[in-house]
Parts: sequence; structure tokens; C-alpha cells
Amino acid sequence: MNNSEIHNFYAGPGKLPLSVLERIENELYDYRNTGMSIMEISHRAPPVVELLERTKEKIRRLMGLADTDAVLFLQGGGSMQFHMVPMNLSEEGDAVDYVDTGYWTTNINAAQAMGRDVGIVARDHGAIPSDFDSRPDSKYLHICSNNTVVGTQWHDFPEVDAPLVADMSSDILSRRIDSSQFGLIYAHAQKTIGAAGVTVVIVPQATLERIPDGLPPFFDYRAHNAASSNYHTPPVFAIYVVECMLDWIEKEMGGMVALEERNKRKAELLYSCLDHSGLFNCDVEPDSRSLMNVVFDLADQALSESFSREAREAGLIGLDGHRSRGGFRASIYNAVEPDDVKSLAEFIAEFERRRG
Amino acid sequence: MNNSEIHNFYAGPGKLPLSVLERIENELYDYRNTGMSIMEISHRAPPVVELLERTKEKIRRLMGLADTDAVLFLQGGGSMQFHMVPMNLSEEGDAVDYVDTGYWTTNINAAQAMGRDVGIVARDHGAIPSDFDSRPDSKYLHICSNNTVVGTQWHDFPEVDAPLVADMSSDILSRRIDSSQFGLIYAHAQKTIGAAGVTVVIVPQATLERIPDGLPPFFDYRAHNAASSNYHTPPVFAIYVVECMLDWIEKEMGGMVALEERNKRKAELLYSCLDHSGLFNCDVEPDSRSLMNVVFDLADQALSESFSREAREAGLIGLDGHRSRGGFRASIYNAVEPDDVKSLAEFIAEFERRRG
Repeated sequence: MNNSEIHNFYAGPGKLPLSVLERIENELYDYRNTGMSIMEISHRAPPVVELLERTKEKIRRLMGLADTDAVLFLQGGGSMQFHMVPMNLSEEGDAVDYVDTGYWTTNINAAQAMGRDVGIVARDHGAIPSDFDSRPDSKYLHICSNNTVVGTQWHDFPEVDAPLVADMSSDILSRRIDSSQFGLIYAHAQKTIGAAGVTVVIVPQATLERIPDGLPPFFDYRAHNAASSNYHTPPVFAIYVVECMLDWIEKEMGGMVALEERNKRKAELLYSCLDHSGLFNCDVEPDSRSLMNVVFDLADQALSESFSREAREAGLIGLDGHRSRGGFRASIYNAVEPDDVKSLAEFIAEFERRRG
Repeated sequence: MNNSEIHNFYAGPGKLPLSVLERIENELYDYRNTGMSIMEISHRAPPVVELLERTKEKIRRLMGLADTDAVLFLQGGGSMQFHMVPMNLSEEGDAVDYVDTGYWTTNINAAQAMGRDVGIVARDHGAIPSDFDSRPDSKYLHICSNNTVVGTQWHDFPEVDAPLVADMSSDILSRRIDSSQFGLIYAHAQKTIGAAGVTVVIVPQATLERIPDGLPPFFDYRAHNAASSNYHTPPVFAIYVVECMLDWIEKEMGGMVALEERNKRKAELLYSCLDHSGLFNCDVEPDSRSLMNVVFDLADQALSESFSREAREAGLIGLDGHRSRGGFRASIYNAVEPDDVKSLAEFIAEFERRRG
């Protein structure tokens, strides 16, 4: 199968826009008239230093960040942030709160291993919880804005006493948010804004000022901010792909309003198709449904296996649910085209006509 | 200037072989008949799982590793290993030894911040030290196999009582080594075997067995080994570039013997040119000179500025010395062609004729 016959629904890493791949191809041997690939240029040379600055400013603009918010490009994925968040925002013995909306045990384990007093202030894997608050004196309350495994997403963020920390790895820059609500945001790039290998971390000035002294600089957001994400060699190519994605959002999608509308239409088409089905079902509470990961099931095991195989044969790739849950999942991140979703909806309807 | 007019001597990230860029271009839209870019494929899907396995086996073969040696692909560069080495090979209060051959304060600071009893058993920034040993009960002795800033390199590795740990970030797979001498080897990829964003870590079985229990899995080599470097999403594209480089070494260079010979010839040409100069000089002790980073100076400050500017205008890129040292440095890693070095040697000779 060639590229145009594939409908890529991988949960991440996943699809990139064709025009982003074309730009990577066009610039591969000669990045901005340097006569070199972006991969061949020193991280201290102006083309890379400028790439870091431009990409930071584009994130700032697209997310409506304050000028004083630090925007960092780090390595180690969300997993590294599971450790850096407690290190930077709290000290041993401090209370830190988490909301449990799905698969995330490594997150709480990391905070516990560092001797934090971890509280789980709300827990729900089928809907987004409400009516909770952080504990008194809690240093932060951590949520995962979109839950790829169970298919739920926060559509309104909670107002709590503690600074709100969000893992936005699976929905950053897929919709508009009010960034002033957050004490910290982090997101790896490989779902909505690029390829694997870089994590974007947004740290407001007030949070920077609360970081305890004495951290090794490698783990201290302030060291990375002071060095403009060049404290050590950054993952240059992965950051370059992020810039390509941001340009695609601004220039080809027409910005965040249009992109958010497009993402909503894609999700509505798929949920509507599932809700009208007698064979397939989505058991996520409607108000909590994710616009990024549509999780669904087929009651019949034999039919499930047929669907899985036939979908793959039809070029619908990556539909198997997370290994911890089973069932199916269509991840429809930014780069997934409305036509990809239409093909899946048609395949589901056709499968039901034949087998229902 | 286009690609063929550039001679790239960056200290890393630096030059990649043209044929590696061509392969990246050829496979960009369709990785191994998947119809997708390697960047678009889930890290749990067979094409990426197989990439990790193949790349591991190629490193094993080219470096002559034992079957029981773990080969890991991690993020965070050498800096992350500055922390993971003391975490995995020692505990609080333990003695750990370092040899100081140049710019590396973050390394010792990291071990000290973790409460290790750090000893500096030898120090020399102009030559490779000899006649030293690790302290009794030291958990490891750490060296940097090649020192990019000062231009020295270990040509014979020390025989010491403690397990030998080597940062080979700037010369891994540039020459043959006896891997059985080491208790641990780590190297980021962006100098000799790829682009920025991935670090190769080689952990022998005996070292794995000594890792203390209780580490957070993210920092525990055993967790990454048990998950075949898929404990969390690996930096897929950076690992793919490593595989391309390993194939280039095996298929185009003809393997490690031929590559080592080629690297030696490149360095000899340049050192010979400097040693015959009345204007330029290299003050690194001859037996300690690096085959990867040729560090040199011009006594006259005004001439230095002219050389720097004229070299850049002639397409000789990246020759300025490290910001901590000044002077000049030609980094001639694996991908730098003998013709690039010849162009530099001719330029130096011509500069001397005109200005000497």
C-alpha cells in the first residue's frame, strides 16, 4: 500500500500531515541556505539557536501564553516529567494531588518514590470527575487533559486551590485553552504536534519562582530556561518537526479556531456513527468523550477479530485498543484528515451491514 | 553554498554521510513498505519494535559485544547518564572515581549532588594520564574516552580495580575497542553515529546484576532493558538514523577496521600539516592526540580573526574552538570525508603562504 491508501489511526507516534513530510524532504539537504541538513548543524550555531527561539514564540502565540511563561524543549517524554514535576514543584514530605482518570500508575509512583504525600482527590475511568478540590497545602493538583486509553477528555478544567498541572501529551494544540488556568503544562510531541523525541514544557513565571534551590541543573526547569533549552544538546530534528507542525497549524489549517472546529467535526462524525450502530458501542459518558481518541467495542469476540483483520486489510491502521484495555480505539489527532475519519465511519457502517 | 561546497567540521551535531541523507529521503514517505514514514508508526508496532532490535544487534556486532550485554536507547544525552551512572552503579555514601581530562564539571557535580564520595584519581587537560588506579572499594572509575574540548583521546584504556565506565559520546564506533574492558559505556549519537536525540548505553550483565533495588524504573537500566528500550516511547527517528549510520559503516565503509584506518589517515593528514607549520600549532601531547577533534591555535590574535572569517567564507564550517577554550578545532568524526580534511589542510597551507 502506498501512503495515500493508508488511514493512520495510531495512538502515537502517529500520522503527520503530508505537507510536513514534503517540507522535511525539501529542506533535507539544505536547511535555510546553510548547505547542510538541520541534523548536521551544531546546537550552538545560529540556525539551531534561531529554530529554538522561533518554535518557542510560535507555541507562545498559538497557545496565547504570557510573555513571562517559560517554554522549554526537553527530552525523556512524559515519563521524565512524571519525575521533574514533583522535583520542581514540591519537596520531600509535601502534599501533592492527582486526579486518576486512567492509565497513569508510573506518574503517582514517581511522586511517591520521591517521598511526596500523594493524594488521589478524584478517580473515574469512564467519565471526567467533578466536585473535588485539592487538599489544603497541596503543592499542585495534577490532571491528564486527555486520556488516550479510556477515551475521556477534560472539556472544562477544574478550578482548584492548588496550582493546576496538566499532562497535555495527547491534546496539546488540538484546541484552544486558557493557559492562565495552569501552573504547569507538559506534552510530548508525538501525538498532536510532531514526532517522538521532544517534550514541550510550559512553566509560568510564578511557578519558576517557587522551584526549590539545590536541584541538579539537569532536572531544574530554571537551568533549561536560562539556557533557552540549550543547556545540553537538544533533540534538534524533533524540534524542527514541531516547528513544521506549528506552521502547518497556522498557515494550512488557518490557526487554532479552525483546527479545533475540524477536530470537533472529525470526532462528531465517528461518535455519531457509533451511537447509531447496533453492533458497535462507545461506553464513555457523552460529556466526557475525547475529541482525540475514540474508544469503542464490539460485543462479539469473533466479530472483533474479523473487524480488526478486515480493517487492517482495508488500510485502516492502528485501531486496536490499548493493551491494558482491549477493544478498539481510533486516534484522530491533528494530522488525521476528515477523509480518514470518513473512510473509517464508512467501513464501520459497511461492516455492520455485512455482519450485523 | 550548496551541500557539496560545504566542509562541515562542527563538534556535534555534525556532518552525516550524503548517502545516509539520501536513504532518509528515499524512505521518508514509505518505511519498509508500510506506506508510512518511520515517524508516523506506533512504537508498539512491529516496524518500530524490529528497528530497535536490528539496531541493537548491529551495535552488538560492530562493537563485538557479548550476547549478554544490554544495549539501550535512551534520551537525555550524556547529561542524563551523568545522573543514571551513579544511581545505577552506586549508593549514597559510596566511593566513585573520576579521571578529569577536560570539560566535565556537570558530571562530577551530578555524583556529588547524589551524596557520592567522589574522588578525582587523575587530572590532565593536555595529555592522557597514566599511573593511577581507583581507590579501594570504589564502585566505578569514570573516564571520557575522547575529549572534544581539549583534543585528547585514550588510545589504551587504563587497567584499574573498579569497573571502568566510559563516556564515549565523541568516539563510539570510530575505532575498534575491547568492550570486555568496560563495566559500562554510554554515548549520545550526534557526533559519530547519528543525529541528536538518542543515547546508546551498553550495560554488561555483571553490571545489571549490581544495580540497587528501589530505583524509579525510569532511571533503572534494568527496566529499559526488560522493555527492549520501549519502556516509554523511544526517540524513533533518531534511532532510525543510528541504524542508517551502522549500515553505512558496514556496507559503505567496509566495517570497523576500514573505518578506523580512514579516521587515522584523516587525523594524520591534519596533525602533520599543523606540525609542519610555523604559524599554527597544536599543543596536545602527541601520544594523546584525538583522532576525532584536532585542536589548534594561531599565536597572533589578528591572524586568528582573519583565519576564522576566511575559512568560513571558503565553506570550512565549525572551526571555532569550544567557547571555554577559544582557538580552533576541526572535528573530523566518522562522516567527515578525507576530501573535507584535505580541503582544510590545503586551506591552512595556503593561509600560511599568504600571511605567514
